[in-house]
Amino acid sequence: MNKPLKGIIPPLITPLLDNETIDNKGLERLLEHIIKGGVHGIFILGTTGEFASLSYKLRREMINYTCKIVNRRLPVMVGISDSSFTESLNLARVAAECGAEAVVLTPPYYYAPGQPELLEYLKRIMKQMPLPLYIYNMPVHTKVVFEPATVRDASTIPGIIGMKDSSSNLAYFKQIQYALRDRPDFTFLVGPEEFMSEFVLTGGHGGVNGGANMFPKLYVQLYNASVARDFDTIGKLQQKVMQISTTIYKVGHHGSSYLKGLKCSLSVMGICDDFMAEPFHRFKEPEREKIIQYLDELNYRELL
Amino acid sequence: MNKPLKGIIPPLITPLLDNETIDNKGLERLLEHIIKGGVHGIFILGTTGEFASLSYKLRREMINYTCKIVNRRLPVMVGISDSSFTESLNLARVAAECGAEAVVLTPPYYYAPGQPELLEYLKRIMKQMPLPLYIYNMPVHTKVVFEPATVRDASTIPGIIGMKDSSSNLAYFKQIQYALRDRPDFTFLVGPEEFMSEFVLTGGHGGVNGGANMFPKLYVQLYNASVARDFDTIGKLQQKVMQISTTIYKVGHHGSSYLKGLKCSLSVMGICDDFMAEPFHRFKEPEREKIIQYLDELNYRELL
Amino acid sequence: MNKPLKGIIPPLITPLLDNETIDNKGLERLLEHIIKGGVHGIFILGTTGEFASLSYKLRREMINYTCKIVNRRLPVMVGISDSSFTESLNLARVAAECGAEAVVLTPPYYYAPGQPELLEYLKRIMKQMPLPLYIYNMPVHTKVVFEPATVRDASTIPGIIGMKDSSSNLAYFKQIQYALRDRPDFTFLVGPEEFMSEFVLTGGHGGVNGGANMFPKLYVQLYNASVARDFDTIGKLQQKVMQISTTIYKVGHHGSSYLKGLKCSLSVMGICDDFMAEPFHRFKEPEREKIIQYLDELNYRELL
Amino acid sequence: MNKPLKGIIPPLITPLLDNETIDNKGLERLLEHIIKGGVHGIFILGTTGEFASLSYKLRREMINYTCKIVNRRLPVMVGISDSSFTESLNLARVAAECGAEAVVLTPPYYYAPGQPELLEYLKRIMKQMPLPLYIYNMPVHTKVVFEPATVRDASTIPGIIGMKDSSSNLAYFKQIQYALRDRPDFTFLVGPEEFMSEFVLTGGHGGVNGGANMFPKLYVQLYNASVARDFDTIGKLQQKVMQISTTIYKVGHHGSSYLKGLKCSLSVMGICDDFMAEPFHRFKEPEREKIIQYLDELNYRELL
Repeated sequence: MNKPLKGIIPPLITPLLDNETIDNKGLERLLEHIIKGGVHGIFILGTTGEFASLSYKLRREMINYTCKIVNRRLPVMVGISDSSFTESLNLARVAAECGAEAVVLTPPYYYAPGQPELLEYLKRIMKQMPLPLYIYNMPVHTKVVFEPATVRDASTIPGIIGMKDSSSNLAYFKQIQYALRDRPDFTFLVGPEEFMSEFVLTGGHGGVNGGANMFPKLYVQLYNASVARDFDTIGKLQQKVMQISTTIYKVGHHGSSYLKGLKCSLSVMGICDDFMAEPFHRFKEPEREKIIQYLDELNYRELL
Repeated sequence: MNKPLKGIIPPLITPLLDNETIDNKGLERLLEHIIKGGVHGIFILGTTGEFASLSYKLRREMINYTCKIVNRRLPVMVGISDSSFTESLNLARVAAECGAEAVVLTPPYYYAPGQPELLEYLKRIMKQMPLPLYIYNMPVHTKVVFEPATVRDASTIPGIIGMKDSSSNLAYFKQIQYALRDRPDFTFLVGPEEFMSEFVLTGGHGGVNGGANMFPKLYVQLYNASVARDFDTIGKLQQKVMQISTTIYKVGHHGSSYLKGLKCSLSVMGICDDFMAEPFHRFKEPEREKIIQYLDELNYRELL
Repeated sequence: MNKPLKGIIPPLITPLLDNETIDNKGLERLLEHIIKGGVHGIFILGTTGEFASLSYKLRREMINYTCKIVNRRLPVMVGISDSSFTESLNLARVAAECGAEAVVLTPPYYYAPGQPELLEYLKRIMKQMPLPLYIYNMPVHTKVVFEPATVRDASTIPGIIGMKDSSSNLAYFKQIQYALRDRPDFTFLVGPEEFMSEFVLTGGHGGVNGGANMFPKLYVQLYNASVARDFDTIGKLQQKVMQISTTIYKVGHHGSSYLKGLKCSLSVMGICDDFMAEPFHRFKEPEREKIIQYLDELNYRELL
Repeated sequence: MNKPLKGIIPPLITPLLDNETIDNKGLERLLEHIIKGGVHGIFILGTTGEFASLSYKLRREMINYTCKIVNRRLPVMVGISDSSFTESLNLARVAAECGAEAVVLTPPYYYAPGQPELLEYLKRIMKQMPLPLYIYNMPVHTKVVFEPATVRDASTIPGIIGMKDSSSNLAYFKQIQYALRDRPDFTFLVGPEEFMSEFVLTGGHGGVNGGANMFPKLYVQLYNASVARDFDTIGKLQQKVMQISTTIYKVGHHGSSYLKGLKCSLSVMGICDDFMAEPFHRFKEPEREKIIQYLDELNYRELL
């Protein structure tokens, strides 16, 4: 794997037929769709992948199927976040066996560890970790922030090679980048697609952007334009990204509207089923109609 | 099982030798210790039991061993909280097979569901639930409160027989009790031991109090005195409970000090090992010395 | 003033005609109503009194008018909470000149001070404080908790004579009471009326309960029954308190429903105007109808 | 005033001699320092200006003195945030009389209004507002976010001309910018200096950056380079900004370290006193030594 890893790495949704069954054909279509779109890697079993709602059996299947379908055409990163140290390691071993290139880990997310406890946890888990690891900051779900000093210390643990930040707090992430400015090999990836371009313009490495499930080309083009500092193109593509962010992701209530909108769109586009694992449920007809309307307003076929 | 369930139901700590091994002899000593202390039930795999840090293998073993040792001398309630619907059901089935009498469930705790999503989740999971269920309010860890209207609706789902509240917010819990005043069969249990007596004095059914791992008699006597409205006894015993709360549980930093203090005390008392599952770690010598001192100040042998 | 202060001290709502005018006649009726109801003191300019929404001119008038009307029939406690140290002292001086007996103070509530900063702030402000002071824990509004160690240190500052806790966290407040068990002169008052009885049953001194604006007798009788440990009476009165808590305070949305319900009820009862200071606004007709219905269901005239 | 307002508008610290006295000479030196540095406007009585800690007398003096010293060389924006509607208007009137060009307003910050209440509050206050107004999003202190739909509605209220966002959440602010893309006259200013450059590169209007109190030229140059898309210069200057952010602002504990570091640096630089209004206190010698060392490492004289 290149160091740092650069580009668009979609956080893959997990296509499901029911609470216990992966939509295999949908998964295959989705993977071919995003690979064709030119993405630079694939991240499965992240927050967008509903990892925490899936049984372990399903998570193992998802790792297995994805690695087989991708077949080393792209690096596969596997989310191994869990409240249990042992289960995280179990998943990491499956990932290694299946040929994934790296794993991604949030803090354990039931008990909120203090920062020294979190650092100690990373040190211990890395001793048994079979793959390189990206740390994953997602405080809205885990309640715990990787404080900059913790990241700096963590970056010296063998095997920790980068960070994905989904806090939406760019001031925070730039402080961490600055603190690690002597580590050109350390990867910085940002979750929110709304400012992926800004992040890349000033030295960030790329985006783990959910919208790239639907429109991989759009995000890859925006990434490329940002690397090239082609502001005309950035301006045009950014409008599309913001249109998606303020329509598709904002149907319905609750924090789950992003995830529901994303899966519903993929279903409308004929890529995969929109079944959602508990405790969420797919949009009903009125919300689906809204998504269809928003996709039309996007002229979405031109984005494919 | 009696409806409502009444009395002291200790949330059992999980005695461990290492991250993958239950301290079986410690578990047996602990169970005999609390049964001898007169408790009215046992709750395993709750927050105090470090459930979220344990592998599934360990959780299954813990259910199995506990049910065998208890051997129906007391009702066993099993925590099946999980971020995954399926894994919660898997644990519930193990609990049913092993002879447990009920299960206990928090909201899924990575994605924070909205209240309608939470109610729908309960309806769906109860359709497959092999045992009666207590809902478990623990917002500091799960980020989600069971709002009173949600509890009222949940109480009509077949199989949901009670609630344990660990929010420390007595105003909240009394509102729920009042809303369900026409349900004398519905059980209300309170987590924080600091006001278990007050809760029972005005009609609450009992406490799921961590301190009862160490001193089951103390909490049972306080419960009995509260039922009997024997204020002299309440006054004396309450002093001990508050002494424990403000010493044993307050060594060290971070939210984990309660759990560390509890396990350390049990180790000092010779009952079981104080190994803690990741991401926590047992107290080192200076903190242990402090615990020993606090136990001495409590004249703890008189409480046994 | 007795030490500790005991009984029911209503947190007075501030009757208003518009954003700049006190409803003087309403204030007089309200004060006579609650004095006739047998309360043990009066607390003005607290959270229930909308203090933070009032101009300084209005706050000074409210102190002045109240002290004149009460005319030393009862102790008057004045809320002087402010984001500005100087304005808090300015209000305290007005309170002293008007004959109030004590003041009540939250942490400054824009910048959230750390605990050492908060303790230092208390030390400095008490050097110039012309009246005894109760500290006021109200974290939902101020973002800052008085941690138990801070309260213990604060209790040794000359002039600090007690604490009102509105956190709803009884475990927390009992820890503080226990830590100050060698200070029988230090007053502990609880805000939430839902567990005032429980708090008094085991040694708390009283309640600062908003419902006592409407039904002072009810809360005084519940207090007396709690002191007397008369459980039959407690049981009956507690039902009324819970009925109020789950109906009158739960109309409409937002955190402001408690305050709106309280003022609306007082208006329905003919005691004072229900105008609310910005950013809140009185209930419109549909909500008012609901309040009227709830008051009828309470048979509220029997509670007067 | 130009619409939109563009450039660097420092949020002025308030130089103080003690809790009741403005450091007038310091204020004059500070204003000349930043005007000489080329800034595009001045924002007084914001969060960095300790507005909430200052008495009203001081706030009025601060408006008066600043407007006199600036003497229309630059637009002066005045923070009028307050928990009281009336006091906000009182301050706005002082600002208008003194010749300020606009005012800036957070939500009322003790009671947390719901979004409909917040919108209604804005409508009502704007009816009496004598100057144009920028809304000010600062959720860490006010507990309330201006949700995008609320901002969109607020932008149609006559007199509301722009927004300053200090949430650090760039995804949020870009959603609002996109929602108001048909309003080229509406000003968008960002608080956190760490990503002011990124914000301006893709169409933001400028920064209200605390560091510009110390080093106005640095921030003006970075703004200019961002407008000109001069990435070499951006790269160099951004390093300095990040060095400031990760050293000067990170001495000491608590949320107040940013403010303390800023005032201490200005004192070390001989510009004004570092007295802080309660509940904060200036750094003591060890922290001051650290600030001196950090300023040396910055070669700060070259930045002046």
